[in-house]
Amino acid sequence: MAITNEQKNCQWRIARRPKGNVVAEDFLYHEEEIPILQDNEILLRTLYLNLAPVMRMYMSGESIAGEKGLDIGDVIHGRGVAEVIKSNNSNYKPGEILQGQIGWQTFKSTEVTERERFRKINNCGLPFSIGLSTLGMTGLSAYFGLLACGKPKKNETIVVSGAAGGVGSTVIQIAKMIGCRVIGLAGNQAKCDLIKELGCDEAINYRTEDIRQTLSNLCQNGIDIYFDNVGGDILSASLDHLAQNSRIVLCGSISEYLHDKPYGLDNYTKLRRTNSCMQGFFIYNYSAQFDAAEKELSSWLKERKIKPVEHIYDGFENMPKALSSIYDGGNYGVALSRIRHGPNDDE
Amino acid sequence: MAITNEQKNCQWRIARRPKGNVVAEDFLYHEEEIPILQDNEILLRTLYLNLAPVMRMYMSGESIAGEKGLDIGDVIHGRGVAEVIKSNNSNYKPGEILQGQIGWQTFKSTEVTERERFRKINNCGLPFSIGLSTLGMTGLSAYFGLLACGKPKKNETIVVSGAAGGVGSTVIQIAKMIGCRVIGLAGNQAKCDLIKELGCDEAINYRTEDIRQTLSNLCQNGIDIYFDNVGGDILSASLDHLAQNSRIVLCGSISEYLHDKPYGLDNYTKLRRTNSCMQGFFIYNYSAQFDAAEKELSSWLKERKIKPVEHIYDGFENMPKALSSIYDGGNYGVALSRIRHGPNDDE
Repeated sequence: MAITNEQKNCQWRIARRPKGNVVAEDFLYHEEEIPILQDNEILLRTLYLNLAPVMRMYMSGESIAGEKGLDIGDVIHGRGVAEVIKSNNSNYKPGEILQGQIGWQTFKSTEVTERERFRKINNCGLPFSIGLSTLGMTGLSAYFGLLACGKPKKNETIVVSGAAGGVGSTVIQIAKMIGCRVIGLAGNQAKCDLIKELGCDEAINYRTEDIRQTLSNLCQNGIDIYFDNVGGDILSASLDHLAQNSRIVLCGSISEYLHDKPYGLDNYTKLRRTNSCMQGFFIYNYSAQFDAAEKELSSWLKERKIKPVEHIYDGFENMPKALSSIYDGGNYGVALSRIRHGPNDDE
Repeated sequence: MAITNEQKNCQWRIARRPKGNVVAEDFLYHEEEIPILQDNEILLRTLYLNLAPVMRMYMSGESIAGEKGLDIGDVIHGRGVAEVIKSNNSNYKPGEILQGQIGWQTFKSTEVTERERFRKINNCGLPFSIGLSTLGMTGLSAYFGLLACGKPKKNETIVVSGAAGGVGSTVIQIAKMIGCRVIGLAGNQAKCDLIKELGCDEAINYRTEDIRQTLSNLCQNGIDIYFDNVGGDILSASLDHLAQNSRIVLCGSISEYLHDKPYGLDNYTKLRRTNSCMQGFFIYNYSAQFDAAEKELSSWLKERKIKPVEHIYDGFENMPKALSSIYDGGNYGVALSRIRHGPNDDE
């Protein structure tokens, strides 16, 4: 792992709009002075930064989830885990580890506002990367998407796409706790092995298997919940196999991020014939319930009922390449870049 | 109005599969003996028959809503209102007026089964056609679609497509009772006048106005409920104007019935960003609650809080032409064919 320059604030900024997948030339490496702490601010030293499909959309200038799109030259948006190294805010003390919006940079000085709340991480004895996986937006998305939108009941059949991803891998484990039959879709054999290890009753390799035929075989009584992390074809195939009163949870659409033309879903009327529901969800709408959810997720972590699945890329300097690889399906679990080793790290 | 032959059972059967809209050659007129009453059966004399978009799908051989598709030569499916003229079932007496599955014929002898329940019509002093409009599947679809799926709250903005149709005209009236702001879409000026008379705050002529622009102007805080009777483009436009936590009720897709290739809905991901839900519904799933709904609809009718909107075509012999006209947007309200004058008819 390359050593991060501790004398400067290192940043990745956007050099130009990406076309298709991101490439090195879309990014600009920049160094500047470490910011000087102002009144009410805290100074953060970055430990981990999240890598998420949505980042390419920010880079394309799209405004999403309350974050405005990026202008050329802006520091790239991204949530991260960081250590407080100085504080002019009595609620935060040096040494505390927080998660929140940091951006692709190795230091950040910021006020804590209602909009940019930095949450202290109760790490349950695990590495603090947990603040971006099970106890971050990923885990919360799995929690609210499955429980509040999917409303699973024991013995129901749930199909999860992107099952080896950050959200998917958590959904699988919660669904198994509830007593559902879980069928996961993933894009290679190693991922299929992983999701079976996490509890999937069946794993479908969507790159080599005929999805519709396999769903027909495996879901003879229909799908009760389809948890969608990918959109497109797999969503369409699931619509063709719904049970009565089933629920589709629209969580992500990674299959669409690299296409110029969005997917035309031509069998949405299947929702009518099965009395089914397609529920979109936006995690920040549940923010009033984040504390309670985090408490429950923490207790499951401590009891080892669920575990984080993290794909950690090393080094700030490798972030552009790491982001590119997640669109190729190269990662499993939550994709993170480790910027510095934090307390309690496993290496 | 031509006189129906009272000595024969007159029928319309399917002669061939329709291509595009139905035409005269798709139908076969047939006469046979009036059926002889068997044990446990009731003999019905048809008063009204429903004309519905779904009929073309039955004629195309599609099995829908538990009704199997038609084979060439079959009597065409359709719900109707009929008088009991003979009865070997102690629950039904001659003179009672029922609604149920009759088919395109002027007499029917049948057992009353759990599957083919004939419901007595509490006509509230109105013509018995009410059994196919407000107190039939049309009114029940408006009732459950709006109240159980749409869950309207006072002051919410609801957009209704096919607003001048049978379901739409009832949805408008119930939504106004609840205190919603109602925006209706219809295909000509006369229909726009009708829906304003029924209570719509705004009427959009979707054939002459730019739907997206008009929705932008009229729904600056977004659409809380979109009640979809048409599918396709208007559904897509509504997805682009959703408020947070909005509900789309998928009731019908008449815009799709005449297309070979179904509409590709390419902005369904808008459900995600607004935390919204698209709920399909199948009216027969609510059959356990039909009696209670009918009671409430009857009370609203009696109190003149809602009124039926019926487009009555006269004469059994004109049914093929009447069915064709509903795909052209020629009708308003519930489309019915009057086969014979019933008690309490207004003519």
